Amino acid sequence: MSRRLLDRTWLALRLVLGCALLAACAQVPLRGTGDLGIVIERANGRVAIVDTTAKSVLGHIDGLGDLSHASVVYARDGRHAYVFGRDGGLTKVDILLQRIDKRVMQAGNSIGGAISQDGRLVVAQNYVPGGIKVFDAETLELLSEVPTESKVVGLADMPGQKFGYALFDKGEIWITDLTNPRVPVTQKYPAGLQPYDGLVTPDGRYYLAGLFGEDGIALFDSWHPEAGARKILENYGKGEEKLPVFKMPHLRGWAVAGRNAYLPAIGRHEVLLVDTASWRETGRIPVKGQPVFVMARPDGRQVWVNFAHPDNGWVQVIDTLKGEVVQTLQPGKAILHMEFTPRGEAVWLSARDDNAVSVYDTQSFTKLMTLPAQSPSGIFFTSRAARMGF
Amino acid sequence: MSRRLLDRTWLALRLVLGCALLAACAQVPLRGTGDLGIVIERANGRVAIVDTTAKSVLGHIDGLGDLSHASVVYARDGRHAYVFGRDGGLTKVDILLQRIDKRVMQAGNSIGGAISQDGRLVVAQNYVPGGIKVFDAETLELLSEVPTESKVVGLADMPGQKFGYALFDKGEIWITDLTNPRVPVTQKYPAGLQPYDGLVTPDGRYYLAGLFGEDGIALFDSWHPEAGARKILENYGKGEEKLPVFKMPHLRGWAVAGRNAYLPAIGRHEVLLVDTASWRETGRIPVKGQPVFVMARPDGRQVWVNFAHPDNGWVQVIDTLKGEVVQTLQPGKAILHMEFTPRGEAVWLSARDDNAVSVYDTQSFTKLMTLPAQSPSGIFFTSRAARMGF
Repeated sequence: MSRRLLDRTWLALRLVLGCALLAACAQVPLRGTGDLGIVIERANGRVAIVDTTAKSVLGHIDGLGDLSHASVVYARDGRHAYVFGRDGGLTKVDILLQRIDKRVMQAGNSIGGAISQDGRLVVAQNYVPGGIKVFDAETLELLSEVPTESKVVGLADMPGQKFGYALFDKGEIWITDLTNPRVPVTQKYPAGLQPYDGLVTPDGRYYLAGLFGEDGIALFDSWHPEAGARKILENYGKGEEKLPVFKMPHLRGWAVAGRNAYLPAIGRHEVLLVDTASWRETGRIPVKGQPVFVMARPDGRQVWVNFAHPDNGWVQVIDTLKGEVVQTLQPGKAILHMEFTPRGEAVWLSARDDNAVSVYDTQSFTKLMTLPAQSPSGIFFTSRAARMGF
Repeated sequence: MSRRLLDRTWLALRLVLGCALLAACAQVPLRGTGDLGIVIERANGRVAIVDTTAKSVLGHIDGLGDLSHASVVYARDGRHAYVFGRDGGLTKVDILLQRIDKRVMQAGNSIGGAISQDGRLVVAQNYVPGGIKVFDAETLELLSEVPTESKVVGLADMPGQKFGYALFDKGEIWITDLTNPRVPVTQKYPAGLQPYDGLVTPDGRYYLAGLFGEDGIALFDSWHPEAGARKILENYGKGEEKLPVFKMPHLRGWAVAGRNAYLPAIGRHEVLLVDTASWRETGRIPVKGQPVFVMARPDGRQVWVNFAHPDNGWVQVIDTLKGEVVQTLQPGKAILHMEFTPRGEAVWLSARDDNAVSVYDTQSFTKLMTLPAQSPSGIFFTSRAARMGF
C-alpha cells in the first residue's frame, strides 16, 4: 500500500468520522426546555412539541392511544412529560428526543393524573375500575393503589406529597398522603352529591369540588383539615330552573386573579366573581355564551373565556380592573383550550376544527402566528413543572 | 500492507471513531433545564451549575469578574442566564455547555439587571455612571440607554415590556416602556428621600421602593399610573430612635404570602406583617436578629428568615397560619441567601464562611445534602424564567 493511498484512506476516514459525529449529535438537539410545550392532537393519538420562543412546531410523538380528554404533567427537569390518555394509557415522553420513553396501560378508562411535589411519583385517576394508582416517575413501576369503589375525578397534587381528589359515586373528597409511596394514608371528607371535577388553588391550600347532583361547591381547607369540607356558593349550579347545559365547565379552568376567583357559570352566559376570603359571590359579568374555560393571564389583569357549542368560535377577554369584557375575538373554529406563556405576553389557542393553533399577543390582541395541528385540544407548557395543583 | 494489518488498522480506527463520538456527545449533555440553577461563588468570580433533582454540582463557569452582590436572570429557554457583576460586567452564560456565551463590560459599577416579559431585552442598572442600558438578549448589542443622573436601584421587569426602578439621588420612581427598545418611553414619579432598593409584587402590578432618607415606603400601582407614587408604612425605617443598622435589608427579599406581605424590620429583631390591600401594618413577629431576607415558601405556609451579623449563622421559620416562629436552624456560617425549589419541597441555603450550600427539606427540616461551593452567595434556579419581577 503506497503512502499516497494511505493518506487518501485517512482522509476518507476523517470524513466518515466527521459525518458520523454530526449525525450523532444532530440526534441530540442541545437546547433548554424552559420554552417548550406539548399540544394534544386528539384525532391522531399524537402530540406536537412546540417552541414558544420561535412559535414553531419542533416535531411530533406518535402512538399515544386515545387522546380525547388527555392531559399532561411535567417532570421536574422539563424534558420528560406524562401523558394521560382516555383509554388508561400512561405514557412518559421525552420531548428533547421526541419519542416515547415508557408506556403502560394502567386502567380501562382514565381521565388524568398528577405529579407529586418532589417529582418522584406520578398518580393516575381512573373511572374504570376507579381508584388511583401510584407510579414511580422514573420507571413507571406501580408502587401502590388506593381503591375507591367509585369514579375518581379532579385529582391534583398538594404540598407535602399529598394528592386531593373527589369520588363521584360516594360524594367524598379524599386526601392521600404519599410520603411513603408504598403505604398511602388517606383522609376522607363528605363533600356532597356527585362531585364531577375538582381543583387545587394555585397556592396548594384549598381543594374545591364541583357538584353535579346538587347546587354549590365543596371546599376543603388543607390548613384546617379538622374542619372537613364545607359547602360554598350554594347557588352555583343548574339551579331551580334546571338550565340546559351544553357542556359542564371545567373547574380546572377557574381563574384566581388577585383576591378573586372567576368561575364559569353553569348553563348561563355569565362569569361569576367570587371573593376568595369569604368564598361568596360578589358579581357577575355577562359574556357571549356558556363559558368552559375561564383563565387568568399570569398578572391577573385579564381573564380569557372560551365557550361551549354553539359559541365555541368566540373568545372574550375580561379586564379585571374594569370588571367587563374589553375584547371579543374569533380565533378559529371550536376553540377547545388556551394556555398562557409563562409570563403572559402571549396566549396559545387550540382551534380544533381549523386544525390550527393560534398565538395572540395579550396586550395588542394581534394574532402573532398560526401553526398547523391535527384536531388540537389541550396545550401544556413546561412552566407547569414549577406550579402546584396540576 | 497485509490484509491482517489493514484489519487491525480498521479496528483501531473504529475504536477512535467510537471514542470521538462518545467524547463529542459527552460535551453536549442532553438534559432538560427545568431543575437547574446557578450558585454565585463570589470570591472566585465563578458560578456553580447545580441540579436540584440530584442535589449535585454539575460544573462551573469561570471568568465572570467581581461577583460581590451579583445577580442572575434567565432567558426563556432556561439554558442561558445573564449574570450581572458588581464591576459592570454583563455575562451571558450557557449552563448546558457550562461556558461563557458572550460578555460585555457595560458600566463601571453596577448592581443588577432584569429581563423583559418577552425575553428579548436584558436591562442593566448602574451606579456609575448611573442610568439603565438596554441590550438585545440574544447578541448583547446595546439598543438604547436611559440616562438618570443618579444611581439606579431596584430595577425589575413589569408586564408589557416595562421596567420599574428608583433613583437614589433624585428620589423618584421611573417606569420605562421598551415596547420599542430603541426608543424608551419613561414616566417619572416623585417617591421620597433616597430610595435604596425596590421590588415588584409577584403579580407584576405594584412597584415599591424602600427609602433610606426618611421612614416609609413609596408605592406605585401600575394599574393606576395617574395616581403616582404614594407613601405607605410611614413608620417603616430607622424611626425616631435612629437604630444602629448592621445591614439594610433587601427589599427583594420581601415575602408575599396569601394576602400578607412579610417585611424585614429595619434595625429591629422583628418581621413586620402588612396587609397588601390596605398596605397597613397588621402585626409584628419577634425573631432572633436583624432580618435580611424574608422569603415565602411557594405555598405561603412558611416564611424563612436570615439575619445580619452577628446573627447570620441562624435561620428561622415562621408558620404563617400560627403567626410565630416554629423552627430555628443553624445551617452554617454566614447564611447569605436562600432559594426554594420551584414547588417548595426543599430550600437551598448559602453558607459563605463554610464554603458550602445546604439543602433542607421544608417539611421535616432535615438537612438533605451539603454541597461544596467557594464563598457562595446568591442562588438562582431556572424556574425564575417563568416569573415576573426579577
